[in-house]
Amino acid sequence: MPSSPRDPVRVSFQPEGRSVFVLPGTALIEAAVRAGIVLDTPCGGKGSCGKCRVEITANPPEPSEADRRHLSAEELALGHRLACQTRVFREASVSVPLATRFFEQRILTDGRGRRVALEPTVRKCHVKLPEPTLEDSRADLERLLAETHQSDHEPGLEALRELPGLLREHGYDLTTVTAEGHLLALEPGDTSSKNFGMAFDVGTTTVVGFLLDLAAGKEVAVASCANPQIPFGDDVVSRIDHAANSPQGLQELRSRIVECLNDLAGECCRSASIRCSDVYEATVVGNTTMLHLLLGVSPAFVAQAPYVGVWKRSLNVRGEEAGLQIHPRGLVHILPQIAGFVGADTVGVILASGMHESQAPTLAIDIGTNGELVIGGRDRLVSCSTAAGPAFEGARIRFGMRAAPGAIDKVIINQDVEFNVIGNASPRGICGTALIDLVAELLRVGCIDRTGRLLPPEELPQGAPDIVKRRVVEGDKGLDFIVVDRDRTQLDGPILLTQRDIRELQLAKGAISAGVSILMKELAVEPDQLDHVLLAGAFGTFVRRSMARRIGLLPNVPSEKVLHIGNAAGAGARMALLSRRCKEDANRIAERTEYLELAGRADFQMEFGSAMLFPEL
Amino acid sequence: MPSSPRDPVRVSFQPEGRSVFVLPGTALIEAAVRAGIVLDTPCGGKGSCGKCRVEITANPPEPSEADRRHLSAEELALGHRLACQTRVFREASVSVPLATRFFEQRILTDGRGRRVALEPTVRKCHVKLPEPTLEDSRADLERLLAETHQSDHEPGLEALRELPGLLREHGYDLTTVTAEGHLLALEPGDTSSKNFGMAFDVGTTTVVGFLLDLAAGKEVAVASCANPQIPFGDDVVSRIDHAANSPQGLQELRSRIVECLNDLAGECCRSASIRCSDVYEATVVGNTTMLHLLLGVSPAFVAQAPYVGVWKRSLNVRGEEAGLQIHPRGLVHILPQIAGFVGADTVGVILASGMHESQAPTLAIDIGTNGELVIGGRDRLVSCSTAAGPAFEGARIRFGMRAAPGAIDKVIINQDVEFNVIGNASPRGICGTALIDLVAELLRVGCIDRTGRLLPPEELPQGAPDIVKRRVVEGDKGLDFIVVDRDRTQLDGPILLTQRDIRELQLAKGAISAGVSILMKELAVEPDQLDHVLLAGAFGTFVRRSMARRIGLLPNVPSEKVLHIGNAAGAGARMALLSRRCKEDANRIAERTEYLELAGRADFQMEFGSAMLFPEL
Repeated sequence: MPSSPRDPVRVSFQPEGRSVFVLPGTALIEAAVRAGIVLDTPCGGKGSCGKCRVEITANPPEPSEADRRHLSAEELALGHRLACQTRVFREASVSVPLATRFFEQRILTDGRGRRVALEPTVRKCHVKLPEPTLEDSRADLERLLAETHQSDHEPGLEALRELPGLLREHGYDLTTVTAEGHLLALEPGDTSSKNFGMAFDVGTTTVVGFLLDLAAGKEVAVASCANPQIPFGDDVVSRIDHAANSPQGLQELRSRIVECLNDLAGECCRSASIRCSDVYEATVVGNTTMLHLLLGVSPAFVAQAPYVGVWKRSLNVRGEEAGLQIHPRGLVHILPQIAGFVGADTVGVILASGMHESQAPTLAIDIGTNGELVIGGRDRLVSCSTAAGPAFEGARIRFGMRAAPGAIDKVIINQDVEFNVIGNASPRGICGTALIDLVAELLRVGCIDRTGRLLPPEELPQGAPDIVKRRVVEGDKGLDFIVVDRDRTQLDGPILLTQRDIRELQLAKGAISAGVSILMKELAVEPDQLDHVLLAGAFGTFVRRSMARRIGLLPNVPSEKVLHIGNAAGAGARMALLSRRCKEDANRIAERTEYLELAGRADFQMEFGSAMLFPEL
Repeated sequence: MPSSPRDPVRVSFQPEGRSVFVLPGTALIEAAVRAGIVLDTPCGGKGSCGKCRVEITANPPEPSEADRRHLSAEELALGHRLACQTRVFREASVSVPLATRFFEQRILTDGRGRRVALEPTVRKCHVKLPEPTLEDSRADLERLLAETHQSDHEPGLEALRELPGLLREHGYDLTTVTAEGHLLALEPGDTSSKNFGMAFDVGTTTVVGFLLDLAAGKEVAVASCANPQIPFGDDVVSRIDHAANSPQGLQELRSRIVECLNDLAGECCRSASIRCSDVYEATVVGNTTMLHLLLGVSPAFVAQAPYVGVWKRSLNVRGEEAGLQIHPRGLVHILPQIAGFVGADTVGVILASGMHESQAPTLAIDIGTNGELVIGGRDRLVSCSTAAGPAFEGARIRFGMRAAPGAIDKVIINQDVEFNVIGNASPRGICGTALIDLVAELLRVGCIDRTGRLLPPEELPQGAPDIVKRRVVEGDKGLDFIVVDRDRTQLDGPILLTQRDIRELQLAKGAISAGVSILMKELAVEPDQLDHVLLAGAFGTFVRRSMARRIGLLPNVPSEKVLHIGNAAGAGARMALLSRRCKEDANRIAERTEYLELAGRADFQMEFGSAMLFPEL
């Protein structure tokens, strides 16, 4: 039975053997992000740098123009393609070379080593004990812990109850499972090669789970889904309201997200053919609100001045207590937070990027409804949060939508308005990246001025393409720009960009860039002193750097200094799972990262006002 | 409504204000032991030393002869009496002066101080926090822990969930409850003066619970009852069998004892007018088997060679996990054990006696079905366990019974056999202490020879009282001694001591004194080098020292060196509750006390054989 063109298709990535299901027409680079693999795309996915080469091992699609420009005929014949220019329409197996990977590249280039020395918190130790005699009548526990050199470990009651039977039924041959000075469990025989962990990135919109083999130090599965709390509100504030206002609200939100993590863990474990109880640790990053909801702790006061969370430090909770269906005595490690609106996800971004160890200052930007910003390096790290509003996610924009099939995600103005639609369908709206493209291009051709005003045809500059002039029309509330004519949309009418949409974008980008300005002022750093500008998260991965710079969303640094680091928060959670040292690093990061409360600063309103202007060329 | 003569009567002790219920006719000294108050009785409770003076504040009974001998008319008028000579028949309030108390006396005399510096594991800290502002936006937890100087403490999930509401509903004024680096709970306002703990002594026969006010460092209530596991067997071996043989056996025994501890805690809390959830810690001593059953850990292998327990070290378990109805996040501290048959009760005895700190060697003997013996001092401590059998508890003795109403508990042979009966009733049997008296007295008058043979009338020495000769009669299986003529018993016939009973006593005392000999040999200690011989436990409290020495149960030391230390195991549990240092002491004691496995020693059978003989005079 042929699958319908809208059925998700499977893309597997090698050598990880990790698979994800994506909608037909999804860019390969996006599929890779979903699979937790971040590709290096210095050109921002425009097909111009040729860095994101991958090998499609069966049925590669027709090469794109960019493919032909960057790859030899021989390479093309072998299935080499640029991931940013390739869209997936059928099942595919994709091999990602080391040089194409962002994190591995950074290891190669700066030698700082974000590659993690394997040192998981949960340890297994196989032992064959001498049997007790009248001369050696140590108690079972003391015998076991002495022989495994863990005499300082505390046994749990359950392990104690299992111990005598287990020892005698299996010839005193068993494996201990320990963590943080506690004996968590006992397993008969030698199971030391079977040690698994889950890393979770709990986003307001998307939740991702990674299954890691902690004995081998590699990932074995990944799964993701939409956050099932979305029906209660698509931003953190509405979730907080729901948790605070209805008596059962907190519990409702908690059980949704707990169930979701259990589903992801279940999916990963099934695909790796292991039992969920083989998973002895889970690490979790997320924003402050998501973590409060996950643990059933009220986030009510995060949303009210002075915006304080209930806790900041990293937490260890028993799997059972957290409701996670890993081993009931397994460990759930919640990474630490920085402040009420700068959560463990930001700690994960800093940890994964390694910026906390860098000499020259780096700026990291994670854009969502809130923008979380961090600047600094080895000597000092300063963070802030700025309410960008939901414009980048398509909300409050007349034809705005999320980056889903039917969304225009890319716009270029040449002779006319050219665009790309996700899922290769006719367009039904504009997502955040396209909104930025559109405004940047209209600025370029002079159709919008520095203040954000959409110019009427008679005020357009001489060089403006005629076809563009034609598209500026009188709307209900001022001028509109016709992005797509009505006959080319899925809708009853044209897709428009309104004057009000531009104002929304100005508010959003103004909030971000005012935050960036204040952080740079705080550290007395000029744009040319920045080592890198890191763009994290899904939005950060797909926004085109030149366009973002054109509208003034990013400081004015050369394109090659702007790096897309993908789901760096999730990468941080994976690192913490692989290594106790990374957990300690994360604690130190949270401890030393200062938090600037913009709401408390007189200069923020000033900066914000001027940041709403578009930069001069 | 007048109470029936067999209804328990209440005796309260001052200044503790502690009450116990006892059967009418119980000796006041025994009631005091049940209330956890150990009186000094150098003469062994014979009324000859006059040390155990107490003041009965209302309705004192008629003075005894001993009372008149030791106390002035004025004192008698004030209600002063000797506790060892006074039996309780109605509700009484008894004031116990300091000089009469065993432990306090020892403090006064040897200055080593078994008085404990108050330093409970569970601490309460009241704090009024500065409210958060934009300038001080620390998270709730970090604010709380910084202000209470507990930043290194780990919060439990439940405390975290309560925290934000509690802070804001009570004006940031609250009390933290912490233990061992964990934040257990939060209470609104200042509750720092309300800190309670329970100390439990779980014996095979009797269970005692003490409620301590850990803020004031004093006991506020005590309760005791028979171990409700007794229907499953009255010794540890039959309990172990029940736990090991039936699938539900372990669970059955566990829930019985857990329920029992909850009942005792409930009784104490009611009498002190506090809630059980105000109790944040429980400490527990008991023999190895009792502790295994309490935690639901199989004791099956304790009873089989090489007699190993599942654990030895001290354990901390959450109240909830242990099933105890103290605060669910409260701590249950199980004191450490020494070996399979030398449990936490022996550690408690050593701790309470302070023998581990003494220069000269001390011998401590805790006699029950098993005898636990410890010898040594500051430099070395050696323990062993010896199966005395149940003879001291009246089992396997033709007319044997426990020390209950109707039991003869004391025998003297003057012109005839004189005896005392518990509960002032006509006698129906002989308890362990009377068995020892009887054999000791028959040895003295020459009616039993060194080998334990009951001599026929014709072999009796010249000086033997005629009346005694008349009492040696031919029975079914050899000679019997008529203790009580048929017309003076509750029974259909006389109360007899059989030749076989004497053999049982020889086996029991032989096991104990062979153990003592081997321990003394191990330390190369002669009787005259012993600093003290300590008799612990209920049996140890009531056995008369001279009689015990006469039959060779105790080494040949002067009476004043033999001290009754009462429920020293329970005293050890109370000390551990009052002080973390005592917990550490207990751990060190368990760690350093060596264990001699008598079953593995060739010399034990030899010693046992000769120890069955009675000593020459």
